[in-house]
Amino acid sequence: MIAIESPTTLAARYQQVRDFTEELCRPLATEDYVVQSMPDVSPTKWHLAHTTWFFETFLLAPHLPSFAPLDTRYGYLFNSYYEAIGERQPRAARGLLSRPTVEEVFQYREYADRWMAMLLDQPSPRPDQLLDLVTLGINHEQQHQELLLTDLKHVYSCNPMDPIYSPRDLLRAAGIPPLRWFDFEGGTATIGHYGQDFAFDNESPRHDTLLQPFRLASRLVTNGEWLAFMEDGGYQRPDLWLSMGWSTLQEQRWTAPLYWRKYGSKWWNLTLSGQREIQEAEPVCHVSYFEADAYARWAGARLPTEAEWETASAGIPTGGNFVESGCFHPRPAMANGLVQMYGDVWEWTQSSYSAYPGFRPASGAIGEYNGKFMCNQYVLRGGSCATAQDHIRATYRNFFPPEARWQFMGVRLAQDAL
Amino acid sequence: MIAIESPTTLAARYQQVRDFTEELCRPLATEDYVVQSMPDVSPTKWHLAHTTWFFETFLLAPHLPSFAPLDTRYGYLFNSYYEAIGERQPRAARGLLSRPTVEEVFQYREYADRWMAMLLDQPSPRPDQLLDLVTLGINHEQQHQELLLTDLKHVYSCNPMDPIYSPRDLLRAAGIPPLRWFDFEGGTATIGHYGQDFAFDNESPRHDTLLQPFRLASRLVTNGEWLAFMEDGGYQRPDLWLSMGWSTLQEQRWTAPLYWRKYGSKWWNLTLSGQREIQEAEPVCHVSYFEADAYARWAGARLPTEAEWETASAGIPTGGNFVESGCFHPRPAMANGLVQMYGDVWEWTQSSYSAYPGFRPASGAIGEYNGKFMCNQYVLRGGSCATAQDHIRATYRNFFPPEARWQFMGVRLAQDAL
Amino acid sequence: MIAIESPTTLAARYQQVRDFTEELCRPLATEDYVVQSMPDVSPTKWHLAHTTWFFETFLLAPHLPSFAPLDTRYGYLFNSYYEAIGERQPRAARGLLSRPTVEEVFQYREYADRWMAMLLDQPSPRPDQLLDLVTLGINHEQQHQELLLTDLKHVYSCNPMDPIYSPRDLLRAAGIPPLRWFDFEGGTATIGHYGQDFAFDNESPRHDTLLQPFRLASRLVTNGEWLAFMEDGGYQRPDLWLSMGWSTLQEQRWTAPLYWRKYGSKWWNLTLSGQREIQEAEPVCHVSYFEADAYARWAGARLPTEAEWETASAGIPTGGNFVESGCFHPRPAMANGLVQMYGDVWEWTQSSYSAYPGFRPASGAIGEYNGKFMCNQYVLRGGSCATAQDHIRATYRNFFPPEARWQFMGVRLAQDAL
Amino acid sequence: MIAIESPTTLAARYQQVRDFTEELCRPLATEDYVVQSMPDVSPTKWHLAHTTWFFETFLLAPHLPSFAPLDTRYGYLFNSYYEAIGERQPRAARGLLSRPTVEEVFQYREYADRWMAMLLDQPSPRPDQLLDLVTLGINHEQQHQELLLTDLKHVYSCNPMDPIYSPRDLLRAAGIPPLRWFDFEGGTATIGHYGQDFAFDNESPRHDTLLQPFRLASRLVTNGEWLAFMEDGGYQRPDLWLSMGWSTLQEQRWTAPLYWRKYGSKWWNLTLSGQREIQEAEPVCHVSYFEADAYARWAGARLPTEAEWETASAGIPTGGNFVESGCFHPRPAMANGLVQMYGDVWEWTQSSYSAYPGFRPASGAIGEYNGKFMCNQYVLRGGSCATAQDHIRATYRNFFPPEARWQFMGVRLAQDAL
Repeated sequence: MIAIESPTTLAARYQQVRDFTEELCRPLATEDYVVQSMPDVSPTKWHLAHTTWFFETFLLAPHLPSFAPLDTRYGYLFNSYYEAIGERQPRAARGLLSRPTVEEVFQYREYADRWMAMLLDQPSPRPDQLLDLVTLGINHEQQHQELLLTDLKHVYSCNPMDPIYSPRDLLRAAGIPPLRWFDFEGGTATIGHYGQDFAFDNESPRHDTLLQPFRLASRLVTNGEWLAFMEDGGYQRPDLWLSMGWSTLQEQRWTAPLYWRKYGSKWWNLTLSGQREIQEAEPVCHVSYFEADAYARWAGARLPTEAEWETASAGIPTGGNFVESGCFHPRPAMANGLVQMYGDVWEWTQSSYSAYPGFRPASGAIGEYNGKFMCNQYVLRGGSCATAQDHIRATYRNFFPPEARWQFMGVRLAQDAL
Repeated sequence: MIAIESPTTLAARYQQVRDFTEELCRPLATEDYVVQSMPDVSPTKWHLAHTTWFFETFLLAPHLPSFAPLDTRYGYLFNSYYEAIGERQPRAARGLLSRPTVEEVFQYREYADRWMAMLLDQPSPRPDQLLDLVTLGINHEQQHQELLLTDLKHVYSCNPMDPIYSPRDLLRAAGIPPLRWFDFEGGTATIGHYGQDFAFDNESPRHDTLLQPFRLASRLVTNGEWLAFMEDGGYQRPDLWLSMGWSTLQEQRWTAPLYWRKYGSKWWNLTLSGQREIQEAEPVCHVSYFEADAYARWAGARLPTEAEWETASAGIPTGGNFVESGCFHPRPAMANGLVQMYGDVWEWTQSSYSAYPGFRPASGAIGEYNGKFMCNQYVLRGGSCATAQDHIRATYRNFFPPEARWQFMGVRLAQDAL
Repeated sequence: MIAIESPTTLAARYQQVRDFTEELCRPLATEDYVVQSMPDVSPTKWHLAHTTWFFETFLLAPHLPSFAPLDTRYGYLFNSYYEAIGERQPRAARGLLSRPTVEEVFQYREYADRWMAMLLDQPSPRPDQLLDLVTLGINHEQQHQELLLTDLKHVYSCNPMDPIYSPRDLLRAAGIPPLRWFDFEGGTATIGHYGQDFAFDNESPRHDTLLQPFRLASRLVTNGEWLAFMEDGGYQRPDLWLSMGWSTLQEQRWTAPLYWRKYGSKWWNLTLSGQREIQEAEPVCHVSYFEADAYARWAGARLPTEAEWETASAGIPTGGNFVESGCFHPRPAMANGLVQMYGDVWEWTQSSYSAYPGFRPASGAIGEYNGKFMCNQYVLRGGSCATAQDHIRATYRNFFPPEARWQFMGVRLAQDAL
Repeated sequence: MIAIESPTTLAARYQQVRDFTEELCRPLATEDYVVQSMPDVSPTKWHLAHTTWFFETFLLAPHLPSFAPLDTRYGYLFNSYYEAIGERQPRAARGLLSRPTVEEVFQYREYADRWMAMLLDQPSPRPDQLLDLVTLGINHEQQHQELLLTDLKHVYSCNPMDPIYSPRDLLRAAGIPPLRWFDFEGGTATIGHYGQDFAFDNESPRHDTLLQPFRLASRLVTNGEWLAFMEDGGYQRPDLWLSMGWSTLQEQRWTAPLYWRKYGSKWWNLTLSGQREIQEAEPVCHVSYFEADAYARWAGARLPTEAEWETASAGIPTGGNFVESGCFHPRPAMANGLVQMYGDVWEWTQSSYSAYPGFRPASGAIGEYNGKFMCNQYVLRGGSCATAQDHIRATYRNFFPPEARWQFMGVRLAQDAL
């Protein structure tokens, strides 16, 4: 368990998060920073540089008159998708860049950190907007910490050398609590962010919505349950699948979750601590929306809506198996009750990722952060074993296309009330 | 104007719709029935045969013991997407089939019609389920009447010979009513189908939903307004577009709605009555969800939700410019008031196509009709100039992927209440 | 057997060939003229129109001052690949054209024929160049007669309705002569066209080449021999294949010649007279260069060079199973001796299609006829059962890419002399 | 100039070549070893490992009973294309491998070198075949030295950071000798390898061929001459191009040789010493067969055949600008006479890469070295500035597909004798 103390100033908070990013890189060989194993994946060094570019572009350049960039070409190389900022390295070509070297990227980080310290140390009153942007940048960096891990896992998965990120034994559980259903009343529910703490723009405005009575499963779907689905022909029965899911399954030849491999008669899966035999008690992980939806149909249930999930999470503390546990893998449910709502795996909801009523993105380039992606994606909730604990909250909306599997994604079932 | 009398029996209704399909084919040359111009498009003769296959498969084979199919290979050729029925001709390969010939397809229709007459003429009491299936088949055929026209238009659009489907002058309008806003209160609204009349399963269950106060534009967006959007750089400004919309625009090189072509300094568009200069008063047509969304953002508005649209349509009769007008093209707004809600063009909503709370598809193959497509599509409302008037209703949910443009698709704006 | 009399004038010859093209179309339904089943295939009506366009473009327009084209858009639609003539319908989009209709295409042919009759009937002395162009156009039309048949066969092969072009029994043979080897001396050989008769430019200049002593198989490789190759793992052993052949086999999943299908334990193949069980005595057909090369390696032989083939053919009359037999399918060898050199199937040579020393294409657009295709193609010799007998000669060079299979292509083996 | 002494034993020769490979890597950062910028390119560390795998697989494993591989997974990772050896890492996925690390790859080399020293040091008589295989392995490694440089150049070319491999000034020349023509008589010429020295199997058997009288240009085509071609519309005139060349030009949007970039009105090109303005006196480089052929046509000439090139090279010593010059870039012609036949750039010939009469590849896996690639490739002669001087000879046949440009490839013109 990595101890995280709560910093007292924004400058300290900034440096703490920046340091943690580099902490996560410690097990890597130089070569590991370079590879892009599919267009969705970014090389580790790109994540390191892009998060730095974010501070440079949105804080240092506009707000520190004396600031000069370390290398003007980085503005092209490390812009992700901000059209308002300008041209950029094509996403699928991030793995073609042997330069800047890893060492140069760490120097770039250090360079920006020194300027950021200067900015945050200015005695004069600073506008709230600037502090908000720093907080956004910190949260942005935390999102990339998670991506760094999931992307690295994908890179390693393509390598017959079976590289290991974290050489440790993973927790084993003899059994887990039986699945129970928790009932929730319908009626008007209020969802979305409120209060003074940071949240992304897509969590606002807070607004009312109408719920039908529903039930939520006490815990996540497990590998053991998923094996039963597979043995019952789950990946061979088109009647269980959305049409687009079925064609994706056929094109990509899905027969099990991502990272599952069969050796002889046994299923193994790949973890950041290496390959090991499937643990039936663990939550299933690395399944797409299509698979989650098919499983739910097979199980006589459905996926929850994001409003249901958020309503059910009321009052549950944001504890769980997060990145700070150093486990980097979901863990079996340990208790009765409505457990595993936070951490372990992101939980697919049936909700298409769309604007809350009255949503307004920020003006300028920063408005491209969330709003322009509200199409053909589905919302996930609750964070994962690769999420920082202080990054998550009940109103947090993660989103991915329905075929995505390489994040730590899993399933909690819901049902209409009986 | 084609006169449509209301038939008094289901058998008469069946034959009336079947005849109208063939009526729509009258202007075609034999060669026109064969071509598939893109995977989304089906050849006319495929539509003629597939709708027949539907009656054969879901009515005649299970319910008429004496029935024998005309040709057992048709079961493979004319199954669209019913996994439960079996293997089928790949969708993108429907245009490879020179046989059966058009004449043979018409014989196939006649063959099935004779058996259907027998089935519907049986004096013994017939189960409601059977009658429901006939009604479904009739509505299914009406959907394909519309697709037949939109697909044919696409086929013609690929042909430098500029074929004309319906050689007539299209209505011109000197001006149109100014755009006004109609205000609607928020609160609980009830949407979805009710009553005894036919509706598709995706329109149920009727249920409550919560609306914020909103405004709806009095009429459709026009070509003239769209030209202003284009002249203001609408197709060159990424800030107006969803990310996926912008990349689609770049890949497909969109610079105007589908079927618009620039000759010299003038824009023309293709109609089923040939090419003609853009009429500014006409509703814009053949725009994607991406374009509709970008236009709305440019106009300081947004697309309506489907719940808003359905609520606003309460009490408005389902009249308008439908296929029976014989115009096959949207017409300018003629009146003040909330007009053009039905007919002319399908209106994109911002609502992702998803299940209503408590939705259950039918069991068996027929359950594949709607439910399995609830992913990455957006809902359109109100019918078009290619829709049969008695096919539409307030609760009707059409759906297409956000990049689709070849249907008669247009835009009505909405706004949050001031 | 269709009787072909030798016409006495060029005008008669012209009309005879033009008529034969239409004769070949007699079994077709209107729909059969429209379909393009892959980019290499052209619809029948395109062949009918393109050959007409050739006369229009290279004879009528430049040489008949009074000529006016029937429809100027045909110049775009029916230009195949002549860059010097201008823009054209993309090759892969020839199947999108329902118009002009088949009837209109026949009218186009008739229109051009009337003008051609006028041109050829002029009493005034006509330049040799003009007569040469007419002869070229006639030979061009004969080439498209063959393509019309092979393309139609491919179109039919994609259709589960199993259309039949020519409903007749095909010849069966109890046995065939054993394969013998004919020895040829090495030394200087002279190849290429000579004399006053027509030949394509790629057959010139006649020139000397050096041959090593070689042997040529007495007859074509048969289906029975090919089955032995298949049973010996011919399609599973990479050591037999060129690298590019092996990757093509894997991508396209080749396990037998094109048009072979296995029903139960028996192989059948598709002919223009329908599907029937493989006849072991028949020459194997519809194999690629890659397959021919692999087979030869397996058989301890090699493919002949085109110079070897041409040298061996000296003194053999150009008789055999050509299109005039009305069989449209290769026939078993009937005699001892060096047989089947002409007709039945085009014989793959190992020779890359390249310019003869001193080759000069014609100037102007007509120079695009052959020369610009001299890359990544291989030469075939001898004509096929779809070739007109009076179109072939010993020096004739046909050429296709090494993966092509849809022509009537087969194999004759060669060896170095012992 | 790097001094290369001639080693006296095979063991010394082995180590010399192995060392030179690592010498070439000295300027690289660790990250540079990892990237694969297109499927044709291999990462540097893959070259380092694959050449080692070659010795391991063909020498150590079969001939040293005590040998144990360092890591059995390397057999999968570093097999290039030997089907007889077994499965392998897909070619396009060589850049996904962050492991083994660069350091581990160098350890792998050292490990194999120790075993190879043991093998070569054995006092007992060793079979000629073994020594031939060692020599083959050495030549194989030299080929990969060249690929290592050309692949690295491509990797660097994709990087906006403009990495520099060899920071030095390149030679400039005020002028060059005018192009002259050397005449050669026709008649029987004998080409192909003879004697006891090493040659690849594709250079045999030596055989007679017949030549027409021809002329060969005294020097390579220069950048200045190429600019004249470009200014005369060379890249816009389809009449100059092979059909396949023209479609490749359009698809890949070629407007100049690879690595040329226009800044303002000036053309620059990328070298391994960085970007610099085009030197008109330098030989043009990085042009495809298609471009070479089009240029020759424009210039009223043609490409030589490989027999012509080899005949013309008789008696010319294999001197020139090779990798040992340390220049890594072609240099201007310095003298009159038939110059630049060796080194500077590989010279495209018009000859399709095919088997010499009587060619027999070696049996077993090693037979896959050359023969299976004899399809759709064209022969290049003479070596380049990235070739080792002692690796080249008059009979050497290099080969690449006609669209390849990333090797040091250039043009020498030929003509038929007047």
